[in-house]
Amino acid sequence: MEMEIEGGSVTRILMGVSESTIKGHPHASISSRGAFDWTIQKIVRYNTSAFKLLFLHVQVPDEDGFDDMDSIYASPEDFKSLMNRDRAKGLHLLEYFVTRCHEIGVSCEAWIKKGDPKEVICHEVKRVQPDLLVVGSRGLGPFQRVFVGTVSEFCVKHAECPVITIKRSADEAPQDPVDD
Amino acid sequence: MEMEIEGGSVTRILMGVSESTIKGHPHASISSRGAFDWTIQKIVRYNTSAFKLLFLHVQVPDEDGFDDMDSIYASPEDFKSLMNRDRAKGLHLLEYFVTRCHEIGVSCEAWIKKGDPKEVICHEVKRVQPDLLVVGSRGLGPFQRVFVGTVSEFCVKHAECPVITIKRSADEAPQDPVDD
Repeated sequence: MEMEIEGGSVTRILMGVSESTIKGHPHASISSRGAFDWTIQKIVRYNTSAFKLLFLHVQVPDEDGFDDMDSIYASPEDFKSLMNRDRAKGLHLLEYFVTRCHEIGVSCEAWIKKGDPKEVICHEVKRVQPDLLVVGSRGLGPFQRVFVGTVSEFCVKHAECPVITIKRSADEAPQDPVDD
Repeated sequence: MEMEIEGGSVTRILMGVSESTIKGHPHASISSRGAFDWTIQKIVRYNTSAFKLLFLHVQVPDEDGFDDMDSIYASPEDFKSLMNRDRAKGLHLLEYFVTRCHEIGVSCEAWIKKGDPKEVICHEVKRVQPDLLVVGSRGLGPFQRVFVGTVSEFCVKHAECPVITIKRSADEAPQDPVDD
């Protein structure tokens, strides 16, 4: 009963990562960072050559743009500059994770898609067929979940690969637990 | 931003394992074996010294005994022999996984508890505080789930550690998909 481990192929872990929703917090969300740290510490460990991390950031086209604006009036030029700013923010987010992977010595890929995060993540699972999907979660209670929805619950049900949800630890929760 | 991996401590993975419900099939359920194989191939890989597997088998006190009997009449002695037989079956199940771990070279522990599997698994997570819980799943549709309940769904919601559900692959499903 010899166990066969596919020698050549690495374990490919897809991670859905998001920006922080906390104002003035320019980086990865608390739960995305938590999920990344957990994956490195508990799964990858020092066996860096056996794993490849795939970072997917999904931008929501409408919501993202107006969050920080005082007015909803906008010219086509405003939209264009918003879109560029969004794109820059998304790239900055991915850069954070890619840089950390380089420091640790684990190979990675990263890309941005637009759409509904839960739908896009499940679609990308179908397309890239990772061995495992890791998503962070705010760990909200049932009452809060009704209003904000949770990407992780949807992915656990619908993604076509094993899914692991890493809950944000209680001591890292911001003042408003819906923020991240 | 140096990544700290706790040098001394291994990643402890708790696996809930069950016997096959298929008649004349004396061993581990298809989904338990699938979850074990996946964990070794995709997570542990050749880094065997960095992981410890903890096998928990939960026996349901009432249901187990009568499955293979032609009659429901039983004396106290019958009950005793049933209980012994159950215990032997449970040990045999754990022996299967322990033997495979020894062959692979990954350290492990195994134990049996009585009770409702989903409740006991979550209780044991609280007690032994593993880094990760892995449970197999038959991958039933919503209609079948209503009648059989699923341990994995309960654990994803209630276990106090990250949980990974490994669905049985479609080509391994027995004639009756509720069997395992």
